[in-house]
Amino acid sequence: MLINNAYSDFASPQGFIVVDGVNGAGKGTLLGKLVPYLESRNKKVVLTREPGGTELGIQLRALLLEERAGKLAPITEVMLFAADRAEHVATKIRPALAGGAVVLSDRYRYSTAAFQGYGRGLDLKKINQINTVAIDGMVPDLVLLLDLSPEDGLKRLRGRKQISTASGEEERDTFEREELAFHQRLRSGFLRMAEEFPEPFLKVDASQTPEQIFQFVRPLIDIWLTKLSS
Amino acid sequence: MLINNAYSDFASPQGFIVVDGVNGAGKGTLLGKLVPYLESRNKKVVLTREPGGTELGIQLRALLLEERAGKLAPITEVMLFAADRAEHVATKIRPALAGGAVVLSDRYRYSTAAFQGYGRGLDLKKINQINTVAIDGMVPDLVLLLDLSPEDGLKRLRGRKQISTASGEEERDTFEREELAFHQRLRSGFLRMAEEFPEPFLKVDASQTPEQIFQFVRPLIDIWLTKLSS
Repeated sequence: MLINNAYSDFASPQGFIVVDGVNGAGKGTLLGKLVPYLESRNKKVVLTREPGGTELGIQLRALLLEERAGKLAPITEVMLFAADRAEHVATKIRPALAGGAVVLSDRYRYSTAAFQGYGRGLDLKKINQINTVAIDGMVPDLVLLLDLSPEDGLKRLRGRKQISTASGEEERDTFEREELAFHQRLRSGFLRMAEEFPEPFLKVDASQTPEQIFQFVRPLIDIWLTKLSS
Repeated sequence: MLINNAYSDFASPQGFIVVDGVNGAGKGTLLGKLVPYLESRNKKVVLTREPGGTELGIQLRALLLEERAGKLAPITEVMLFAADRAEHVATKIRPALAGGAVVLSDRYRYSTAAFQGYGRGLDLKKINQINTVAIDGMVPDLVLLLDLSPEDGLKRLRGRKQISTASGEEERDTFEREELAFHQRLRSGFLRMAEEFPEPFLKVDASQTPEQIFQFVRPLIDIWLTKLSS
């Protein structure tokens, strides 16, 4: 499914693509296929991610996802993710594009809005305001949005990291219901952003196999490559 | 000199005062006199500062002022200071006020605007936008602005930390001229904010002795205390 006429766009592509979506949707797997594909088309590829795409980002990532996870005020988290993003744009994405590379980022501003805004209920207007300052005009040419039902998403995450069942069935059910509801909010949030942001989003059915997903996005990537070279 | 009719204000004081101004202006010395004075008036006092008023802040302070000083993109610095500030307001200032304490902060949003905006030329509108989100409505009852000429400021700083003269006279002259110009921009920036922000600022001539400064601010503090208790 296409949103924002992605195929007909790419008026002045810069070489910047974002892969975004819920945890477990297969962003890393898709990026793992896109990088060699773009390299086979003679592109210098910079693969990066948020948080953690810069030296500062590595420190902030540790701070956000490990040391202080869940202990910070929600608005502080948004600010730290935005600081990581501002540094990422200024010191990595923009210089890479200026040097002729294409840049693929695993997550971007959309993840902050999905998790902190749609997921946890923080004021979306504030989140978007801060992130608009952080990206300083660096809008991606295309967002590949990996869309997955909460049930499938949780199933995949569970495959990666066994959820403890020691706390008993009833408690686990409550936890799962909450998890499902949270994932549903993220999913709806991402789909809503695909409609509301001006940049083109390609919605990808992430329940497909990695190869199916790659073959689904490839035609659009090819068009983008043509526009990029012309 | 009074700005924004500080004496007649304090319509609904919350108990929050900021001391701000250039380095070397004597913020710490004034705070060192204010704390025991307020305690002698039976106030529970929380003395805090930015950056570094929270556990997160200590980490960010190290990151900003030591590890990565001068290496970060300017907008990243603004975002990190804002993250520190958001955490500071949410987890320290607001709870302290709710618990009946008065809060004195060494620096607040005005320092970021002075250094990054007026000093280094970053877009003031963006800085103020981010900081307005960060403080989440926590506007101080009063800002004590320690105003000092760049010449006096540098003289005091030099007393604290000997500037190397090994690089020769000529180079030192260039350095000092740049330093003076930078301090002048900070000073003008603070004075401009005193006029432009709606909250009351008290401009204090920081070239006076610590005791003179304290005696100058005391009458206003007394009025504030009266309004606070009523």
